Amino acid sequence: MASRKRSNTPAAPRDKLGVWIFGARGGLSTTMIVGARAIAKGKIGTQGLLTETPGLSKIGLQGVPGLVFGGHEIRDGSIVEAAEEIYENTGTIPYPLLRSLKTDLTRIDKNVRRGCLVNAGKTILRMAGRSPSSTTLKTEVVRLKKDIRDFMRRNKLKRCVCVNLTSTEPKLKITRQHETRKGFEKIIADNKTTAVRPSAIYSYVAASLGLPFIHFTPSNAALIGGIRETFDDTGAPYMGSDGKTGETLVKSSLAPMFKYRNLQVLTWQGYNILGDRDGVVLADHENKSSKVESKDLLLSKILGYPLHTHVGIDYVPSLNDLKTAWDFIHFQGFLGYKMSMQFTWQGCDAILAAPIVLDMVRLADLAKRRGDTGPMKHLSCFFKKPLDVTQHDLHLQWHLMTDYVRSVEEG
Amino acid sequence: MASRKRSNTPAAPRDKLGVWIFGARGGLSTTMIVGARAIAKGKIGTQGLLTETPGLSKIGLQGVPGLVFGGHEIRDGSIVEAAEEIYENTGTIPYPLLRSLKTDLTRIDKNVRRGCLVNAGKTILRMAGRSPSSTTLKTEVVRLKKDIRDFMRRNKLKRCVCVNLTSTEPKLKITRQHETRKGFEKIIADNKTTAVRPSAIYSYVAASLGLPFIHFTPSNAALIGGIRETFDDTGAPYMGSDGKTGETLVKSSLAPMFKYRNLQVLTWQGYNILGDRDGVVLADHENKSSKVESKDLLLSKILGYPLHTHVGIDYVPSLNDLKTAWDFIHFQGFLGYKMSMQFTWQGCDAILAAPIVLDMVRLADLAKRRGDTGPMKHLSCFFKKPLDVTQHDLHLQWHLMTDYVRSVEEG
Amino acid sequence: MASRKRSNTPAAPRDKLGVWIFGARGGLSTTMIVGARAIAKGKIGTQGLLTETPGLSKIGLQGVPGLVFGGHEIRDGSIVEAAEEIYENTGTIPYPLLRSLKTDLTRIDKNVRRGCLVNAGKTILRMAGRSPSSTTLKTEVVRLKKDIRDFMRRNKLKRCVCVNLTSTEPKLKITRQHETRKGFEKIIADNKTTAVRPSAIYSYVAASLGLPFIHFTPSNAALIGGIRETFDDTGAPYMGSDGKTGETLVKSSLAPMFKYRNLQVLTWQGYNILGDRDGVVLADHENKSSKVESKDLLLSKILGYPLHTHVGIDYVPSLNDLKTAWDFIHFQGFLGYKMSMQFTWQGCDAILAAPIVLDMVRLADLAKRRGDTGPMKHLSCFFKKPLDVTQHDLHLQWHLMTDYVRSVEEG
Amino acid sequence: MASRKRSNTPAAPRDKLGVWIFGARGGLSTTMIVGARAIAKGKIGTQGLLTETPGLSKIGLQGVPGLVFGGHEIRDGSIVEAAEEIYENTGTIPYPLLRSLKTDLTRIDKNVRRGCLVNAGKTILRMAGRSPSSTTLKTEVVRLKKDIRDFMRRNKLKRCVCVNLTSTEPKLKITRQHETRKGFEKIIADNKTTAVRPSAIYSYVAASLGLPFIHFTPSNAALIGGIRETFDDTGAPYMGSDGKTGETLVKSSLAPMFKYRNLQVLTWQGYNILGDRDGVVLADHENKSSKVESKDLLLSKILGYPLHTHVGIDYVPSLNDLKTAWDFIHFQGFLGYKMSMQFTWQGCDAILAAPIVLDMVRLADLAKRRGDTGPMKHLSCFFKKPLDVTQHDLHLQWHLMTDYVRSVEEG
Repeated sequence: MASRKRSNTPAAPRDKLGVWIFGARGGLSTTMIVGARAIAKGKIGTQGLLTETPGLSKIGLQGVPGLVFGGHEIRDGSIVEAAEEIYENTGTIPYPLLRSLKTDLTRIDKNVRRGCLVNAGKTILRMAGRSPSSTTLKTEVVRLKKDIRDFMRRNKLKRCVCVNLTSTEPKLKITRQHETRKGFEKIIADNKTTAVRPSAIYSYVAASLGLPFIHFTPSNAALIGGIRETFDDTGAPYMGSDGKTGETLVKSSLAPMFKYRNLQVLTWQGYNILGDRDGVVLADHENKSSKVESKDLLLSKILGYPLHTHVGIDYVPSLNDLKTAWDFIHFQGFLGYKMSMQFTWQGCDAILAAPIVLDMVRLADLAKRRGDTGPMKHLSCFFKKPLDVTQHDLHLQWHLMTDYVRSVEEG
Repeated sequence: MASRKRSNTPAAPRDKLGVWIFGARGGLSTTMIVGARAIAKGKIGTQGLLTETPGLSKIGLQGVPGLVFGGHEIRDGSIVEAAEEIYENTGTIPYPLLRSLKTDLTRIDKNVRRGCLVNAGKTILRMAGRSPSSTTLKTEVVRLKKDIRDFMRRNKLKRCVCVNLTSTEPKLKITRQHETRKGFEKIIADNKTTAVRPSAIYSYVAASLGLPFIHFTPSNAALIGGIRETFDDTGAPYMGSDGKTGETLVKSSLAPMFKYRNLQVLTWQGYNILGDRDGVVLADHENKSSKVESKDLLLSKILGYPLHTHVGIDYVPSLNDLKTAWDFIHFQGFLGYKMSMQFTWQGCDAILAAPIVLDMVRLADLAKRRGDTGPMKHLSCFFKKPLDVTQHDLHLQWHLMTDYVRSVEEG
Repeated sequence: MASRKRSNTPAAPRDKLGVWIFGARGGLSTTMIVGARAIAKGKIGTQGLLTETPGLSKIGLQGVPGLVFGGHEIRDGSIVEAAEEIYENTGTIPYPLLRSLKTDLTRIDKNVRRGCLVNAGKTILRMAGRSPSSTTLKTEVVRLKKDIRDFMRRNKLKRCVCVNLTSTEPKLKITRQHETRKGFEKIIADNKTTAVRPSAIYSYVAASLGLPFIHFTPSNAALIGGIRETFDDTGAPYMGSDGKTGETLVKSSLAPMFKYRNLQVLTWQGYNILGDRDGVVLADHENKSSKVESKDLLLSKILGYPLHTHVGIDYVPSLNDLKTAWDFIHFQGFLGYKMSMQFTWQGCDAILAAPIVLDMVRLADLAKRRGDTGPMKHLSCFFKKPLDVTQHDLHLQWHLMTDYVRSVEEG
Repeated sequence: MASRKRSNTPAAPRDKLGVWIFGARGGLSTTMIVGARAIAKGKIGTQGLLTETPGLSKIGLQGVPGLVFGGHEIRDGSIVEAAEEIYENTGTIPYPLLRSLKTDLTRIDKNVRRGCLVNAGKTILRMAGRSPSSTTLKTEVVRLKKDIRDFMRRNKLKRCVCVNLTSTEPKLKITRQHETRKGFEKIIADNKTTAVRPSAIYSYVAASLGLPFIHFTPSNAALIGGIRETFDDTGAPYMGSDGKTGETLVKSSLAPMFKYRNLQVLTWQGYNILGDRDGVVLADHENKSSKVESKDLLLSKILGYPLHTHVGIDYVPSLNDLKTAWDFIHFQGFLGYKMSMQFTWQGCDAILAAPIVLDMVRLADLAKRRGDTGPMKHLSCFFKKPLDVTQHDLHLQWHLMTDYVRSVEEG
């Protein structure tokens, strides 16, 4: 757990909390914003939100109605259009609800600024439909920081949490220079654009501003050593990476069962099919490799021995965001006899991810108020690749959360 | 956990341990005996046996080679024939292995005595192919006790664990008289045959002899108050009921995941299909009701709210003991959106059950040697309906086991 | 094929065609009406409609825009409300489409008259929320006929097809009196209400008026001998029963494969789960038995030998009309080796049924114009229990359709 | 259908029939030989063999007991060892059966000669464990022909059918020279080893000898123009390629259903996992490409429009020959609503393939006796890529078979 400096359980704050989203008009962000506003107006229930369950009710979390949204976005359009596209594609945002929130969404759109495209890779550039700006990295950092500061000033916000919901980037080659703040700031100063990715710039901006940061994607550029050092210097906690929402969530819940019974898992094959922008991006081999890596490593960690695994991700346009996964588990029991289990998971990625982003925004704000710094390990149950946490067993990760909540309650 | 009287960690015993099986020539018993002897002779690995994992290696468990088998059985035939039938039906017992163990199995058969059929219900009687003997309950109890005592004397055994692996019986109507030892012994004395079932007689016999007892079936007659009182009087620990081997095991591992994410489970439909004697017995509605009850109650206990559930069990002769289950889980997430998951479990019931019976035999013997009495709650992860344990979450049940093991290690 | 009196291929009619629906505001009817009007206005494609494929384009079918809807209904409410309920429950009717069709749907509602409840069974009565009227059967028949005649006159329709889309009724006990027109008309005259069901009254009304009739439900009362005789007397063709839309459709497509390879099917277990009014009605054992019977008989007919089959239908409210079926097929191949196949079908019943009802309306109208009488055997591919057709192999049924189409084309 | 020169229905032959197998000790061949001998001795039933069903009983097929086996093989070992390995790996060959056939299998082994490895590709060479012989192509052809002639003489066989059951080869680049007999024979004469594959040599040998030939694998080198011309010159019929045994069989049975209902298939994703030598070979990308191609083309042919498809093949050692496939079908119906179906196929490839090889051996012998030449189109239902047949709908392929059988019956 992040090291703690103060210890009194804070009451729920009365003022509002900013939520600055990198990737503000993507499917996940749009779903989250629509849901948060619908909850604020009492139009829907709170399923999916862990922070709305009784167990987390006494730790002084920011209320959902007090969340104020803004962010950076590389594509044109509006949040209303993004929500309408979601209705058309998957129906997950109910149409009457969408209509009733139009004014809210239009107002939020005014808080969205042009995102960063530096060294984003060809697939993301194609999606953005334009080239990266020709300014230097330094100018870009200044601009992005100003966008967030202006947002906070305009909305009279004292607190703000940053979340990265952008598309998975191609892997960045990490050098020694990335590992210190000084080194990273020299990369910026020298305008070495091929040594960064948008997610590095975004997270560095959050770190410089001393704002808590949630890194929800697998991109490896965001939480490199130099940026973590910056967070520590400015006193802001952070956590990542790669939200655990579907097949991997099930894996991490199910694998311990085989361990409890000494059933030897011989093979665990997983096939994911999905459409949507997410699918397009992952159809690019460069971007996919980041993803597969974080989905594949957990089984041998949980089970304690090497086994045959496979994680396939294929682009199926007709599915849009309704991700389907089929897993086949071959295991050996008494007398060496082989048996099998298979499951099919049919979930909407944005619907599964949106509430846990909200959960983490609220918990990151709490951590910041409590003076926590470093990686928020109690959020490890939400990630495929939890920073500095070797535990992948979902149930043991859950204990990190409940232990943290208890410690907050006990002040 | 059972209350403890002594506390020194015992070393692994040097002498042998008797295992007395009610239902000695059934598929489960036969598989267990074949497997134990194959392990003893180094012919197979130890997959499926929790007690052979490193975590349980320092608590002084009886070695598998030192287990001596005997038991009661209502059907004619031999263990070798039973094993050949299993090879024919499912192939789970490898044929060359079976051939190499013929001498062992034939010797064990000499320890098998005629079982008890009193008020067993029409389906079990049909399977036995004969009527219950006309002797009184008292005579029957005396006979069964003598069988076990003779077995122990003949094999020079100081310790013996009894396990009930008989078919699921029709539910017994429990009255106040069943709740005390005095009451139950009056039922015996008065020869009220309709107030007992074979499993009540068997467990009473074990209790009278002061032998630890594992009740692996759902039959409700075995661990009634009067018999539990008898176990306490003679100082023998016990546990039940209904081994958790397949679909229910998966359920109890998977359901907590939905809780961790506040995903509301709307529906959990489960369909089990199986053949074999087990399937025949459960096709009888009277016998099935005991089973469905213990499979169905766990979900609302784990999740904390009522939900639509269904547990179907259908007889499919062609499957024999290769049980297949399909579960469909319908759940609601953010924005009220409904998603689904389904799984198919294809396991061999005997292969899954046999090693955990061996595990429990070894752990029950350890508990007895340590002076534990009452229900062995640390075995709750092995049961669908763990006695006196309200926890159905597999992971929390697992903690009861690891806590127990640690306490033994620490002496 | 129905016997034919004339032979010239008719051109597509220029005037309109009435479609009189028994069960006019049910989910299936509402979906069909919405779809037909949306196609008429060019708002959606024609997926699902066989009659819109090139193969059926030259046989002079009535165009979809020229269909005029009316019908009988036992429940209160409006078609717009029914469509809104469908949007809420399953989202299958897109909301913007629904809004754009409000005027159309409201106009169609004016053609809906109170349905018949005589001897409908307790579950259907509860759903209707009122008791059957106290008039005699004779008066009821007169009223229903007048409703249809008025509809045709008001809308200047020369032709009209009747379709029965009401809920599955409890089985009616069929006697010798039901087998002749004279006998059945005596039942009406004697007001023997327990000897009829609503579907018998409806189909008799259609027959009396000489209108073609499609019996889409499994209810056994609709096409009894006396009513078929009436259809023959008035010269109207008819067909039934029980639309083949989901699991059974797949079965009849897949089973022949096992025959082609001499793979012996040992077991075919099917489990259907569904919510909705359909689910409520089938949860009543009386109503369910009609259904299961027509789903279960086809396999041994296709395969040519008896086998172990099971058809389960369970009510799962959360699914609404999104029916899910899981089938497990156990089969034996070379060397007696057993293998398996399983499938999960996730379809919306109304979406699957609505277009084939439209297909049959158009084909029944064509048949009537061509002077066909008797059962329209070329429609057998649309039914679980095709009248007077012993062929259940979907592919051979399909040949009956293509042969018919060819014969029409050839005049 | 192959063009026919004579027309009298032949009676079942009294003398024996040779079956020469390229790949004689592979899993498929071993399973076929064991099964044929077990049927000959009355030890098992005839499931899986189409030629043992009543429909094919009156066309004068060679009896199974009269089949005499021999062949070429690149690996060392014996058929008995191969059968024992199958028992160990999958249990598909029952152990007691294997023991009872040892003498038979050992005798058959004496008919096995060293196979051809010329330009076989690195994966197959690694499997063979040795290098191709250094002789010229011409010498190799002479040797292989002599092996078959000796086999026929030794066993007093007048008739013999050749079948190719070797592993899938890397694709051969086909040039104009391959398209004529003259051209191909010049390749041989010039010893252009990179212009052939073993399957080309094998099929050319069969063609030169005038023996009917069944090409059961996808390798594209076997039935090139020059070799087909040779078959025509010597008057032997032939057919291929790539046996249709599992997932593709199901596809070709199921896809027509979507056509009958105008349900538009948007996506058909298929994932195959398997172990065994077959899996090893297909894990080599070069060899896999031949396979995927023949599995992927049929859907758009059956449905009549392009659609998103995918055929994955992954190596899963623990499965051995127990191939598992998961297919996900996404389709659009009325109102544009999307629905889905998924199936899991769990079959043993050798068990499914062996009987249809026997079927084709018997039917090829019949065709030869009847004087048929050219591709045996009535066998198209057995192939993924039936030569000169554009029909992929399994049911229409089946009609080619039944039409042929009728024509034989009618003489």
